[in-house]
Amino acid sequence: MENDVRFKKYSGGHYIMKTTVFMEPGKVELRDLEKPVIEKADDVVIRVVRACVCGSDLWAYRGLEHKPSNSLNGGHEALGIVDSVGDDITTVKPGDFVIAPFTHGCGKCAACLAGYEGSCLAHKDNFSSGCQGEYVRFQHAEWALVKVPGQPEDYSEEMLNSLLSLSDVMATGYHAARTANVKNGDTTVVVGDGAVGLCGVIAAKMRGAKQIIAMSRHEDRQKLATEFGATEIVAERGEDAVKKVMELTHNQGADSVLECVGTELSTDTALKVARPGATVGRVGLPHVPKMDVSAPFGKNVALAGGPASVTTYDKAVLLKAVLDGDIHPGKVFTKKFKLSEINDAYKAMADRKTIKSIIVMD
Amino acid sequence: MENDVRFKKYSGGHYIMKTTVFMEPGKVELRDLEKPVIEKADDVVIRVVRACVCGSDLWAYRGLEHKPSNSLNGGHEALGIVDSVGDDITTVKPGDFVIAPFTHGCGKCAACLAGYEGSCLAHKDNFSSGCQGEYVRFQHAEWALVKVPGQPEDYSEEMLNSLLSLSDVMATGYHAARTANVKNGDTTVVVGDGAVGLCGVIAAKMRGAKQIIAMSRHEDRQKLATEFGATEIVAERGEDAVKKVMELTHNQGADSVLECVGTELSTDTALKVARPGATVGRVGLPHVPKMDVSAPFGKNVALAGGPASVTTYDKAVLLKAVLDGDIHPGKVFTKKFKLSEINDAYKAMADRKTIKSIIVMD
Repeated sequence: MENDVRFKKYSGGHYIMKTTVFMEPGKVELRDLEKPVIEKADDVVIRVVRACVCGSDLWAYRGLEHKPSNSLNGGHEALGIVDSVGDDITTVKPGDFVIAPFTHGCGKCAACLAGYEGSCLAHKDNFSSGCQGEYVRFQHAEWALVKVPGQPEDYSEEMLNSLLSLSDVMATGYHAARTANVKNGDTTVVVGDGAVGLCGVIAAKMRGAKQIIAMSRHEDRQKLATEFGATEIVAERGEDAVKKVMELTHNQGADSVLECVGTELSTDTALKVARPGATVGRVGLPHVPKMDVSAPFGKNVALAGGPASVTTYDKAVLLKAVLDGDIHPGKVFTKKFKLSEINDAYKAMADRKTIKSIIVMD
Repeated sequence: MENDVRFKKYSGGHYIMKTTVFMEPGKVELRDLEKPVIEKADDVVIRVVRACVCGSDLWAYRGLEHKPSNSLNGGHEALGIVDSVGDDITTVKPGDFVIAPFTHGCGKCAACLAGYEGSCLAHKDNFSSGCQGEYVRFQHAEWALVKVPGQPEDYSEEMLNSLLSLSDVMATGYHAARTANVKNGDTTVVVGDGAVGLCGVIAAKMRGAKQIIAMSRHEDRQKLATEFGATEIVAERGEDAVKKVMELTHNQGADSVLECVGTELSTDTALKVARPGATVGRVGLPHVPKMDVSAPFGKNVALAGGPASVTTYDKAVLLKAVLDGDIHPGKVFTKKFKLSEINDAYKAMADRKTIKSIIVMD
């Protein structure tokens, strides 16, 4: 019940803030709630500068997944300014400009040390929520937060958009490419043309893939995929898509496959276009009923992936690539909304009027 | 119907041979059948010197899997002497001593070039059968057969046993370790104490695993696992086994897991003992109903594996390791039978009176 806003409604004497509340499929709205405070020694409270809507937020908005009415928004991507810090925090201080990853790795357990903080072993509350509001409490912040040099006003709109993408989608696309083991010279297939799939194209190119086949049915996304490095576009779906990829790969299949959707069809397609010995790196939250694992066995195709290693990739490679202007993942944000327009931001994305909606504080 | 012996019964004028026929669960018997001949230009006919019974043969023998009555034995492991060769064969000649892998890679397609000939793309008849007899036709032999220096009489019984293991179980154990990405210093868990699991222990040690936890409930197999390099034995099953492994790994789980059984329970156990970011290399022919793939996603655990790369491993590393006396996988053969005792060979293995039965020609 921790996310149920009925238990956190405004009571006199506290600061309040505006944040997004999920009401019912097709409807989110702003509410006045208590501003979050430091609850634990490794908490940081962040004043949000930019947030956005994730494809995973749309499952409930579209009514495809149950979410209780009056519950806090699932928004888990933000850029912000550190507002206050817990006693154990040494890595950031109030006023610092930070990327708030959707993951909250401890940086010390076997999972984090292996670069898999999306599955951190140290705690169970490893993911963000509530970012579509004026403030958010960021738990287990000491290692997980990513400090950005300077202040928001030092950067262009475009750069701020790219920095925001490092809180999830660009890192998640990179995770797909890393877990699919994309190597120099690979033929790589990217299944999914959402923001993550498009960032997967960027990641495949960063890792040296030579032939990058992007599966996309929408013209705006095809265009962006090509701009990001895709060498071929496959607009077909299902068996027709598999056939097309096999033609493009001389009937051998791809060396590496990024599965960036999470449905049964997309997973099936990803496994079928992989050549024997290839790995499918999946990052779409699985909405797959139980799966037959005999076919990938016969083909020696591996199924890897999971929640991304956001902090690891940001610190190691992505922040520098964005700041140096080598990659421009912020281009996935094709419509901008004010916080007060939050329902429009969801709706535009649900109706595919934008690839991804960015939220700027009013 | 190719394997149905009713279509190949003895007709006057042909050479005949004795080979094993599956009659019904619990019963295999020798029959006189036509000796195989060269049918295609890349065939080799082999006079079998040693064969054996595989755990996968036991599914039908135990009545757990349907196999038609009067069908040719599934035996797919042999050492032998080349009897005759097709017109396209240049790599071996009559009289050569060879290991007959259960896989028949072409050596040229994308799968074989990547070291995954168990999923060769060049043809569909990629696996052996009929090896539990005096002769066997070995299709697509040019690249797949593995030549052994000298003749059988140049080697000790122990060495011949180890060479025979290179037709399947040692290579399959190695495949589990390779696809699980066992690295120097790893903590590795081996699920399954059949011949493949025991060979998996050898392979994990060859690849530098430091802590090797073997799951085994049988004293003879525990002993052999330890001799092969296991540092700890877990005799528990299911959730108790998971708990024990977590204790042995400081609650982090294993860096790599070899799944050498193929049942639902063994697969579940393998996934649960893996730490985030680890890979489960599975080589047990999957007898798993549809599987929930959400749990491994949450943990970032990869599921890899499939039919082994027998020729690749034999030529690259295993034949030399056996001939140099560095590894002794032949120790998995703990009972010897004549071809005429074939049903006893199956029964002893089904009753767990032996880890693996070896068949010596009468």
